[in-house]
Amino acid sequence: MTWQVDVLTLFPEMFPGFLGYSLAGRALEEQRWSLQTHALREFGSGRHKAVDDTPFGGGAGMVIRADILDAALEATKPQDNRPIIYLSPKGRLLQQADVKRFASGRGIYCICGRYEGIDERIFQKHAIEEVSVGDYVLSGGEPAALVLMDACVRLLPGVMGSDQSEVEESFSEGLLEYPHYTKPAQWAGLKVPGVLLSGHHGAIASWRKEQAKTITKERRPDLWATYQHRYGSGVS
Amino acid sequence: MTWQVDVLTLFPEMFPGFLGYSLAGRALEEQRWSLQTHALREFGSGRHKAVDDTPFGGGAGMVIRADILDAALEATKPQDNRPIIYLSPKGRLLQQADVKRFASGRGIYCICGRYEGIDERIFQKHAIEEVSVGDYVLSGGEPAALVLMDACVRLLPGVMGSDQSEVEESFSEGLLEYPHYTKPAQWAGLKVPGVLLSGHHGAIASWRKEQAKTITKERRPDLWATYQHRYGSGVS
Repeated sequence: MTWQVDVLTLFPEMFPGFLGYSLAGRALEEQRWSLQTHALREFGSGRHKAVDDTPFGGGAGMVIRADILDAALEATKPQDNRPIIYLSPKGRLLQQADVKRFASGRGIYCICGRYEGIDERIFQKHAIEEVSVGDYVLSGGEPAALVLMDACVRLLPGVMGSDQSEVEESFSEGLLEYPHYTKPAQWAGLKVPGVLLSGHHGAIASWRKEQAKTITKERRPDLWATYQHRYGSGVS
Repeated sequence: MTWQVDVLTLFPEMFPGFLGYSLAGRALEEQRWSLQTHALREFGSGRHKAVDDTPFGGGAGMVIRADILDAALEATKPQDNRPIIYLSPKGRLLQQADVKRFASGRGIYCICGRYEGIDERIFQKHAIEEVSVGDYVLSGGEPAALVLMDACVRLLPGVMGSDQSEVEESFSEGLLEYPHYTKPAQWAGLKVPGVLLSGHHGAIASWRKEQAKTITKERRPDLWATYQHRYGSGVS
């Protein structure tokens, strides 16, 4: 069955964007996934098809109206059990585990906001997951939706081929990935760590694990704390 | 002066992608920023212009060669002091403070990896910042570079106009944003919180601050802990 993405957006022309190329693009052609955009503007009110208004309580920017968004959702929302996702900097941080959950279902429905955001009452009427792709501010939900789609599509059957990713394995264990080296073995006076040329699989696996731990400890004390908690106090 | 982005990639056709539309697209036309792609493939070796090889020590996937990447960097890297950024899931997590730093400089140079990554020795020869946009795995560095560019471009002078973002203010304080409401004041039996209609600016500001704290505490205990630490034990 085709994994289906619906996107509600003020900028349908931004899709599929970079997902039209490379592996995701080929998978789209092969109908391993499908993409349907819905123009929020079409549900706007009045001659100018307005979708937003000024925030109650004052402040800069505009807020997308609940009634407009509701009309768009009622007309286009999935009839199956696909999750409806609102991309927003105040959402829960997206994790690889969420990506796996989304990719293993029938697809996703993405709501892309612009301006200051959307009227909060929409969450009282519709079951919507509010998801953030990171602690930075984007121009709108579209870049975040594209990133989420990219992360999901690469996990669909047949998209990556047999090219099992090791980044992935590393992530699911809660560690950052160990460093990689390839030919030439000597370059610019810099050698590849000897153990990797030893042919000793056990030693290579231990070295990689230690490297992954060291990098995680240095760069991501938050992940490291979780890892230690999960694997007990014997971990150092 | 034009804020300049260079991108080293195997897929130049993915750029500018969604950044060709809306505010970023207009700013690109107005030369508030510029974009130059460099095709890594052109620096490949042999008849097939190979850029990668199998990892030393074994394992799935391919690794981009240090010598190829080095040749590409030597030929195209910035002659000014723009940072060279490698987008990678094992990098430091991108924060809004990094975005501000990048946006306030002359521009950025992005290296986009594919496959398992790049030969680690490249970091010994070149000063490269390794940055991750989030704890999930993407098909390559291109989606991450586009997100980074989007976050930076919206901060450039003249791009957003006078539309000061409040999401931004909230983020710089270390809290998630408070909820927004707009007209109609009553919709689907759901009312806007009364305080927002009171016209009492002090009460509105307090209510918003409390909401921001509550949402942050619920959804992001990590940010909440940092906030409490920063603003002292009086914060609850």
